[in-house]
Amino acid sequence: MKILFTSDYCEGALPRIMERLQATNMVQTVGYGEDEFCAQARDYIRQACECPDADVHFLVGGTQTNATVISSILKPYQGVLCAESGHINVHETGAVEHGGHKILALPSPDGKITADQIREALDDHFSDANHEHMVMPGMVYISFSTESGTIYSREELTAISEVCRGYEIPLFVDGARLGYGMAASELLEGADALTLKDFARLADVFYIGGTKQGALFGEAVVITNDKLKEDFRYCIKQGGGMLAKGRLLGVQFAALFEDGLYLDAARGAVNKAARIREAFEAKGIDFLVDSPTNQVFPILTEEQMAFFDKDFGFEVWKKLPDGRIGVRFCTSWATPDVNVRQLVSAIKKL
Amino acid sequence: MKILFTSDYCEGALPRIMERLQATNMVQTVGYGEDEFCAQARDYIRQACECPDADVHFLVGGTQTNATVISSILKPYQGVLCAESGHINVHETGAVEHGGHKILALPSPDGKITADQIREALDDHFSDANHEHMVMPGMVYISFSTESGTIYSREELTAISEVCRGYEIPLFVDGARLGYGMAASELLEGADALTLKDFARLADVFYIGGTKQGALFGEAVVITNDKLKEDFRYCIKQGGGMLAKGRLLGVQFAALFEDGLYLDAARGAVNKAARIREAFEAKGIDFLVDSPTNQVFPILTEEQMAFFDKDFGFEVWKKLPDGRIGVRFCTSWATPDVNVRQLVSAIKKL
Amino acid sequence: MKILFTSDYCEGALPRIMERLQATNMVQTVGYGEDEFCAQARDYIRQACECPDADVHFLVGGTQTNATVISSILKPYQGVLCAESGHINVHETGAVEHGGHKILALPSPDGKITADQIREALDDHFSDANHEHMVMPGMVYISFSTESGTIYSREELTAISEVCRGYEIPLFVDGARLGYGMAASELLEGADALTLKDFARLADVFYIGGTKQGALFGEAVVITNDKLKEDFRYCIKQGGGMLAKGRLLGVQFAALFEDGLYLDAARGAVNKAARIREAFEAKGIDFLVDSPTNQVFPILTEEQMAFFDKDFGFEVWKKLPDGRIGVRFCTSWATPDVNVRQLVSAIKKL
Amino acid sequence: MKILFTSDYCEGALPRIMERLQATNMVQTVGYGEDEFCAQARDYIRQACECPDADVHFLVGGTQTNATVISSILKPYQGVLCAESGHINVHETGAVEHGGHKILALPSPDGKITADQIREALDDHFSDANHEHMVMPGMVYISFSTESGTIYSREELTAISEVCRGYEIPLFVDGARLGYGMAASELLEGADALTLKDFARLADVFYIGGTKQGALFGEAVVITNDKLKEDFRYCIKQGGGMLAKGRLLGVQFAALFEDGLYLDAARGAVNKAARIREAFEAKGIDFLVDSPTNQVFPILTEEQMAFFDKDFGFEVWKKLPDGRIGVRFCTSWATPDVNVRQLVSAIKKL
Repeated sequence: MKILFTSDYCEGALPRIMERLQATNMVQTVGYGEDEFCAQARDYIRQACECPDADVHFLVGGTQTNATVISSILKPYQGVLCAESGHINVHETGAVEHGGHKILALPSPDGKITADQIREALDDHFSDANHEHMVMPGMVYISFSTESGTIYSREELTAISEVCRGYEIPLFVDGARLGYGMAASELLEGADALTLKDFARLADVFYIGGTKQGALFGEAVVITNDKLKEDFRYCIKQGGGMLAKGRLLGVQFAALFEDGLYLDAARGAVNKAARIREAFEAKGIDFLVDSPTNQVFPILTEEQMAFFDKDFGFEVWKKLPDGRIGVRFCTSWATPDVNVRQLVSAIKKL
Repeated sequence: MKILFTSDYCEGALPRIMERLQATNMVQTVGYGEDEFCAQARDYIRQACECPDADVHFLVGGTQTNATVISSILKPYQGVLCAESGHINVHETGAVEHGGHKILALPSPDGKITADQIREALDDHFSDANHEHMVMPGMVYISFSTESGTIYSREELTAISEVCRGYEIPLFVDGARLGYGMAASELLEGADALTLKDFARLADVFYIGGTKQGALFGEAVVITNDKLKEDFRYCIKQGGGMLAKGRLLGVQFAALFEDGLYLDAARGAVNKAARIREAFEAKGIDFLVDSPTNQVFPILTEEQMAFFDKDFGFEVWKKLPDGRIGVRFCTSWATPDVNVRQLVSAIKKL
Repeated sequence: MKILFTSDYCEGALPRIMERLQATNMVQTVGYGEDEFCAQARDYIRQACECPDADVHFLVGGTQTNATVISSILKPYQGVLCAESGHINVHETGAVEHGGHKILALPSPDGKITADQIREALDDHFSDANHEHMVMPGMVYISFSTESGTIYSREELTAISEVCRGYEIPLFVDGARLGYGMAASELLEGADALTLKDFARLADVFYIGGTKQGALFGEAVVITNDKLKEDFRYCIKQGGGMLAKGRLLGVQFAALFEDGLYLDAARGAVNKAARIREAFEAKGIDFLVDSPTNQVFPILTEEQMAFFDKDFGFEVWKKLPDGRIGVRFCTSWATPDVNVRQLVSAIKKL
Repeated sequence: MKILFTSDYCEGALPRIMERLQATNMVQTVGYGEDEFCAQARDYIRQACECPDADVHFLVGGTQTNATVISSILKPYQGVLCAESGHINVHETGAVEHGGHKILALPSPDGKITADQIREALDDHFSDANHEHMVMPGMVYISFSTESGTIYSREELTAISEVCRGYEIPLFVDGARLGYGMAASELLEGADALTLKDFARLADVFYIGGTKQGALFGEAVVITNDKLKEDFRYCIKQGGGMLAKGRLLGVQFAALFEDGLYLDAARGAVNKAARIREAFEAKGIDFLVDSPTNQVFPILTEEQMAFFDKDFGFEVWKKLPDGRIGVRFCTSWATPDVNVRQLVSAIKKL
C-alpha cells in the first residue's frame, strides 16, 4: 500500500469527532440544524470569532457552500470577481454558472488577487458608459489558503476589504483550508497572524472548512454583514445543503471549537508540510509556488516522479514546457509522523 | 424529555454503521466515491437489484438527489409530472425550479398519481397544436413510499411504467423511504410485493434512501436506463452532491446491503407503526390517509393533541375545517419497543 | 380567404405607426433605447400615468417582459403568486421557471384572483414554522385584462394592492391587453373606470401592451416602486429584450400616447366585441366566461363550429364534457366594421 | 447634428423592407412565425444556403439568439468555447451564464480563435482524469465577422469545423455581421470567398444577422445538424424570442433574400469602410486591428479624437498605455456616400 499524500481528505475524522458522534448517536433531536448540538457549535464559533452577532450555518461540502453563498448574494446580472485559479472557476463543474452567474476571473500567478486588481475591475465597470451590456461585479471571492497553498497577509487582506467596502461589494472568503492558512499565518506573521476574529471583521461572509480540516464533512458559514443574513436558510435548503440530521454537523464543529482543536490539528499538518518542503529545498528542488501551508508543490523530473510513485501517492498538478512536472504533496490533520519521516527519507535519496 | 415520533431522522445511524465508520476511519482512500468501499457498496446494490449493468451513485441528501436527477434528464423546456403533494413540489424550496424546470403537478388525494392521469397529461400536451407555448412533460416523478405514507401496488407501478415507456418518458422513483415502502408492500401484497428488482425493472432511475432508513445520511441513485447514465458524475459534482470523503457513503451502504440489514430495519419500523395505527383504530380515531408504512396520520381534537403533546413529539400535518387536526406519528429503524409501548398505552387512555 | 378573429395580432400596426416609422427611417440615433424618440415616448407615458417619477422601459414582447420583470424582483428562493390560468403559468413554456422561480398558482375560474386568496397564501407561508422548506411568495402577478377577457373592478384591484402592501410584496400587472381592459372598465364602471393613473398608483410595476394593441410589437414597462427601479436595464439586456434599434419602440409608443390613440383604438375593438357577444346572446348561446373586453368565448356545438369555420377563423379554447366546444372570437384595433357585420350576420343565421 | 459612424444600427431599415411592411400591413396572418411570409423567407434562405433540409427560424435580436441557441445545445454541465472577446463573453450581460452555462474563453488578439486552440482545449478536458470537476466543453462559438471586424479564411473555418466534428462538438457561428463578413471575404479571397453555402456545410448552426445588415431587427437561425433541430421552437418561445407578429420577420428576410439584396447592401458598406481605412492609412495612422469589414479601428491621439468629435460620432474602443485611443468607425448598409466623403475629407486634414 502506498502512503497517500494526494489530498487532505484521504481519511475519516479526528478521533474526538468519532467519539462524539458515537456518544450522541441515539439521542433524539429535531432535524435541519435546529438542535442543541448545532446551537452549541454556533456559540463556540461566535466566541472564537469574537462576533456575538454573527449568523453561523452548517453545510455539507465546499462546492455546495460556495454556490449557495454566491447565489444568495448576487442579483441575476451580477458576477463574482475571483482569481482565475479560484476553486469556483476551475473545479466546481460550473456550479456558480449553473446558478446563473458569471465568474469574472482575474489573472493570478499564485492563487491570490490584489486590492489593486479588484479596484481596477470595479472602476472599469462602474465608469463604463454602456455598462449594462456587461456583467456587473457584485462580490469578491478569495480563498484562504488559496488553491496554490498561498495565504494573504494581514495587510493584503485589509486592503482588499477596504476596496470592497468602498464599493459596497461583499467580500467572501472560501475557507475550505482556513485552518491550514491561519496556522501558516502564525508562522509567517507572528503577532500579526490572521485569526478568525480578523476574518469576521474583514470579510462579509466566510466559511470555516471542516472536510479538509479534521471533520468527516461540513463547512461552517459565518455571516457578519447583516444585509446578507436574511433568509439564508432558504438558500441552504434550496441548494440541497440542509442536512436532515444537522446534528452531525453540530456535534463535529462543537468538538473542533470547544477548546481549539481545529487550529491545533492544522498546526501539526503545516509543520509536517514544512519538513517536507525543507527536504526538497535541501536537494535543490524548485517549486511551482512558494506555499507555506499544508500543500507542497515540488517540480520533479519524470524519473524523480517515478521514484516517488513506487511508495507514495501524490497529485500531478501541472506539466511544464521543459518536461518537468509540478506535483502536489499534501499533509493533513491525519498525517502520522512516520509517514512524513518515510517521505523525507525518500527525498534525501534523490 | 419527550419521546419523539416527529420524523424518521431523529437519531444518528444503525449501530453497525457506526462501527464500520469507526473501524475504517484512518484507512487512506482516494476521494469522490472512487474508493473500494463505494465499489463494494455498488456491487451489493447491483446484486440486490439483480441488475448487473446498473450505474449506482451515492449522494448526500434527498433534495439534492431529486434536483440532480431531474436536472440531468430534462431539456430546458421540459417539466416533470408529479403529484401535487410530491416532495419536489412542496418541501424542497423550489430546487427543481431553481434548476430551470417547471413541475407539472397532478391532483392527488393520497400522494399517488395514476397511469391514467399521466397518460392524459401526455396526450393533452402532445396532441395540442400550439404545444411549443407550453412546458413539455419530459419525465414522471413518483415517491415510494409517498409523502402521505402510501405505496403503489405492483399493478399500479407497472401501469405507470408502461405509460412512460409508451411515450419514451423516463420514470423516476424518489425512494427516500423506499425501505419502509417495500416492507409495507410485503405485508399488503405478499408474494407480489415490490422489491428492488422491480424498481430496477420498472423505473428508469430511482434512489434508495439512506438518511431516513438507518444511515447517518446518503441516498443511492440507481440508473438502469442506459440513456440516463452518461456523465452523471458531472451532474453530481455540479449539484454539490459529490462528497470529498465519498467513502463515508460506501461504508454505510455496504453495511446496509451486505446481508439485508436495510430491509430488516425497515420491517421493524413498519411493524411498530402498525401497532400505533391499530391502537388509534381501536379508539375509533379517523385517519387523514390510510398509510401502511412507518407514518401514521390520526386526526385528533385539540384536547387529544394537547394530551399527547405532554409526553410525545409529533408533527401537525393539516388543520381540518371542523377544527380537528391531522397529525403525524413516525416510527423508524431507531424506534425502541419501549417507546411504542408508552405511546400505545397513552392512546388507550384517550 | 377566411376572416380571422383568431387573435389580436393578425395584422401589422396602426396606420399612424407605419407612417412614423417610415418618416423617421433614415434619422440617425444612438441605440438601445437611449434615443430621443424613446425619451419622448417615456414622457408621454409618464404624463398619461400622472406619475412623473416612474421609470419607463420598452421591451419587445410579452413573455420576455414577464420573465424579465419577475426575475428582476424575486430572490432565488421566492416564487410568484398567480392565477392558475395566468399567462406565465400556462403559455410561456416555463420561462419563469427557466429563470429559476416557482409559480405559486391559485385556483381561478375566470382568470382573476382575489385579495382573500392572496392574503391566505401569504398567511400560510409566513406563519408556517418550517417555512424554509417551501418557496416564499415574493410577488403577485395579475393580468388586466385577464387571459379569459375579464377585468378587475376598482374595488378588487384596490383590495389586492392593499394586501400586497401590507406584506411588502410587489404587485405586477401584466397589461398585454391593458387597453382593452381599460376600455371595458369605462363601459362597466363609468366614472370609476380604472385608468393608467390607477395602475401607476396601485401596482408596483405594470406594463402597457403594444403588440396586441396596435403596435407592430413592444411592451412599455412602468416601474413606480423605487425599490424595483435600480439596474433594470441590466435585466432587460440579459433577458434579450434590449432592442438595438430601440428607437422603433420609442416611435411607436410616442405615436400611441401623444394624443390618446392607444385607448381610442382599444375602445373600438371592445365595442365590436360587444356587438358580437350580443349577437350570440340573442341566439341563446352560452359563454365560457363573461368577458367584457375584446375577447368573446361562446360555447358552440360541433355543427355550429363547422358552420363558422367555413368563413371565419377563431380559436378552440376548451372542450366541454357535454361535447360542446368553447371557442374564442377576438377583435382588435384592426378589425374592420365590415368583418363584424359579416360575423354578426352569420351568427344570426345559426 | 453630427454624422454618426458609431454603429451599424443607427438607422431604420432598407427602403424595400419599409415598403413591404407597409404593403402587407393589413394582411391577416396567423402568428408566431407560421405565416406565409415566413415560409417564403425560409425558402429563399434554404435556397441561398443550397441546403433544402435546413431548419430556419427567425428571432428578434442577437443576445436572445445566442442565448437561445446555446441553451438549446448544451447539457447543464457543459460550457461553450469562445474567444475571450466574443460577444457572448463580453457584451451580453451574462445571458449565457443566466441560462446556466460557463463560457470557456480562449485568448484572442484579433477576435478569432484557431483550430489548434480548440483542439488543445478539448484534449485537455477529455484526457483529464478528474474531468468531472471541470466544465465539459460542449460546443464552439465563433463570430463571423468578429467583434474586431476580422474574418476567418476558408482554410481556417474548415480546420475549425474539422476539429469540432472530430470531437462531435457542434460549431455555432454568430452571424450578426455575416453579410459584412461575406462581402469582405469576396474581396480577400476571391473565388475562395466564404458563402452561405459554406456556413451551412461547415457549421452545425449559424445565424444570418438582420439587425445590423439592413432589417429593422431580426436574426435568421439556420440549423443544418439534424440533432439540433428538434423542439427548437420551444426554446425560442421560452427564451422570449417568438414574436407574436412573426410575419414581420418573414417579410423582412424575404425582402433581403429574394434577389441578393442582403449581400449587395453589405458590399456597399464594406467598400465605404475600405475608403475610410485607406484614408487613415494614407496619413500613417495605426490600427488596433486589421479589419477588412465594415468596422475600422484607427488609433488616435487625444487631439485627433477631439478633431473628429466635432463633426462625427464614433466609439471609443480601447485606451492604450501610451495615451492614444483606439476608436471605431462603422459603416453600414445605410451610410450615404456623402458621409464617407465628408469623413475622408476630414481625415485628409489631420
